[in-house]
Formats: sequence, structure tokens, C-alpha cells
Amino acid sequence: MDHTVSAFDDELRALGARLVDMGLMARRSVVDAVSALANRDGDLASQVSKDDDRIDALQKEIEEAGVLLIARRQPVARDLREVVAALRIAADLERIGDLAKNIAKRNVALTKIRQPQRLIGGVETLSTLVLDRLADVMAAFDARDAEAALRVWRGDGDIDVTYTAIFRSLLTYMMEDPRNITACTHLLFAAKNLERIGDHAANIAESVFYAATGNILTDDQDPPPEMVPAAAPVPVR
Amino acid sequence: MDHTVSAFDDELRALGARLVDMGLMARRSVVDAVSALANRDGDLASQVSKDDDRIDALQKEIEEAGVLLIARRQPVARDLREVVAALRIAADLERIGDLAKNIAKRNVALTKIRQPQRLIGGVETLSTLVLDRLADVMAAFDARDAEAALRVWRGDGDIDVTYTAIFRSLLTYMMEDPRNITACTHLLFAAKNLERIGDHAANIAESVFYAATGNILTDDQDPPPEMVPAAAPVPVR
Repeated sequence: MDHTVSAFDDELRALGARLVDMGLMARRSVVDAVSALANRDGDLASQVSKDDDRIDALQKEIEEAGVLLIARRQPVARDLREVVAALRIAADLERIGDLAKNIAKRNVALTKIRQPQRLIGGVETLSTLVLDRLADVMAAFDARDAEAALRVWRGDGDIDVTYTAIFRSLLTYMMEDPRNITACTHLLFAAKNLERIGDHAANIAESVFYAATGNILTDDQDPPPEMVPAAAPVPVR
Repeated sequence: MDHTVSAFDDELRALGARLVDMGLMARRSVVDAVSALANRDGDLASQVSKDDDRIDALQKEIEEAGVLLIARRQPVARDLREVVAALRIAADLERIGDLAKNIAKRNVALTKIRQPQRLIGGVETLSTLVLDRLADVMAAFDARDAEAALRVWRGDGDIDVTYTAIFRSLLTYMMEDPRNITACTHLLFAAKNLERIGDHAANIAESVFYAATGNILTDDQDPPPEMVPAAAPVPVR
């Protein structure tokens, strides 16, 4: 290996390390956002918003470093895919930070709710599943493990089922008592944002898989519209 | 100018032209999605879903072309910014396609609604504002016009006001009659998606401005949480 190759490897490793940090920050934001929501904690919500600024800045840095790496080292094949995947993953993590901020902000709307814990419990359960997924996919990235990435990509069944259950139960609460409508609407958006964070984890899995194998996972991820016009309300994903 | 420079210019122009096409496709998807929703047109909704696949494929192509351009031509300064901006804009347009697909799918949930036009009218008004914004920002991109991009970036006041009005009126409908809740929830998500498409137009404006000037517009875009715990329900953005 000549010195150019090893310089490239060093820079790529540094890029990967920054991405792992960014993943930890994004995950921490989701944890804090759900906690801010569940405990109506405005200070923590402000913290999530500040952290989002840092995550945004980190994305710009990673993008800049990645682009310079491509321009200076002109990597090909797997080396190039690794850099492209890093740029894509940074974009997904940036979106996760945005979604976390949006969840956190909704804490204000829940201060007047009558049975908060019962309603928020479902959202917390969903967040646990999503956080696990995010941790798994970032571990797969760190290990450059295509098999593990594929498992994450395939395994969003629990999130779908839980999201659908939350959607139904929130709509039922709204129908039972119109005073619940405003707060439940905000919880619906929070749940939707969590589900979307799960989708970004799936995107990250695609990027990890692409970097390792050069293959693109075809997106039959997208489930059929679950809108049976039956008695129970069902979400559209 | 030597032949390398002019080859770069040609490739950059071709990349820009593809991006303009992608912008038109994404905008068309939003038009069709709102029409599918308003007219409960399942065929058109399927078309939006197919178009989203084409938009996704186009993003991958533009990304690949942009990355190769950076690796082969090693552009610097404004040339490099133009390519990076193109990659970012393609990512925003891809997200717009996703959001349009999600809007279109919700047509099924509205088949049982009792007063569809009254409820859908607000969403259509919002879509008009968002579509104008998208057209304006893609025109700013095509003209490489930083001033025009800045105007788009600053001018989302109408969208905010309209989204807030829709949010309030949908919640009022839900409170008046629980039978409206399921359909109104889907319209709420549709309105939220349109507002988000407006945010992606703002992101595109940032990219156009960055390519032209090298400066980054600081994101005080983000409005304060509008959640006055008052009588009228207000959204969190």
C-alpha cells in the first residue's frame, strides 16, 4: 500500500468515526425528545432543539469532508461507495434530529391533558422499538456488517404494528371525549415522527448494505395502504 | 478555456437540466397527489406512487453523476458548490416525491367523509401556495439567481398562516362531530406533508443561495412553537 492509499484509509476512518458520533447524538436526541414529551419538560425540549443545531452542523462538516475526500483521492469501487454511503447516512441522521426536535416541541400541547400517562405509554413503547432499530443499524454501520444491516432493513414489523395500535387508540380517545382531541393530535404527530425515524433507520441500513455489497435493496419496504374503511380507524403510512 | 474545463461545464449543465426535470416531476406529483385526495381518485394515487419510483431512480442517477463529476474533474470553489448543491437539491426533491405519495394514499380514507369539499378546500389552498413556492425555487435554481432564492427562503409566511388555519378548522370539525375524526386526521397529515414540502422548497433555496454565493443561510426559519394553550387549537410545526 502506498502512502496515498493509507491516507485515504485514515480519512475514511475519521469520517466513519464522526458518523458514529453523529448517530449517538441523533439517538440521544430521540431519547430526550420522548422524555421531554412524556414529562412535559420544556427545558429538555430546548436542549433537543440546541442539539439539533449541532447535528445539522455536523452533517455539513461530514458532507464537506466527504466531498473533499472524493475530489482529492478519487476513490473507486468500494472506497467510493463508502464515502457516498457516509454522505447519505449523515443526511438521514440530520433528518432524525429534526424529527426529534419536532417531537420535543409538542410537550407544551400536553400540559393540559387529563390522562397523560395512559396516552403517552404507547408512544414510549414505540420509541423503544425505534431506538433499538437505530442502535442496531449504527452498530451494523460501525462493523460494516451487510448481514446485520439487512436484518434491520427487513425487521420493521413491530414498529408498524405498534404505530397502528397507537393510531387506533388515539383516535378512540378522541372519539370518546372531544376535549382529548388537541392533545391526541399532537401525540399522533409524535408517533408518526417516531415511525418516520424508523424509516430513516431503514434508509441507513440500505446505505450500509450498498457500501458493503454495491447492491441496492429494492424498496418494497413500503407497505400496502392499511386503510380498511371498517369500524376501527387505521392509519395510512 | 481548455477542453477539461468545457467538458466539466457541459457535464454540470447536463446535471442541472436533469435536476430541472426532476423538479417538474416532483411538482407534478404534488399536483396529482392533491387531486387524487380531493377527488378520491385511486388510479391517480397509484400513478403518484409509480412516479415516486421514477423520482427515486432519478435521484440515484443524479447522485452518481455528481459524485463522478467531483472525482473526475476535481472542481473547486463555485464549481464544486454547484455540484454539491445539485446533490442536496436532488435529495430534497426525492423527499417531496415521498411526501406526495403519502398524501395521495390518503384518498382512500376520505371516501366516507360527509362534507368532503368544505374540508378539502383548505388543503387545496395550501397546496397552491406550496406549488408556487416550489415553482419559484426551481426557477431560481435554473437561473442561478441568489436573490430570487432568498425571496423564496424568506417568504413562507402565507404557508404558515394557512397551515395553522387548516389545523384549527380540522380540529374544530373533529370536536363538532366524532364521525369526522378519522377523515380529518388524514387531512391533518396531508396538510402537514404539504407544509413540509414547503420546507423542502426552503432547503432548495438554501442550496441555490449557497451555490451562487458560498454563504449558508442560517436557519432561523424555524418558527416558535405556536402552541398557546388557549381555546382554539393551534399546531406545532
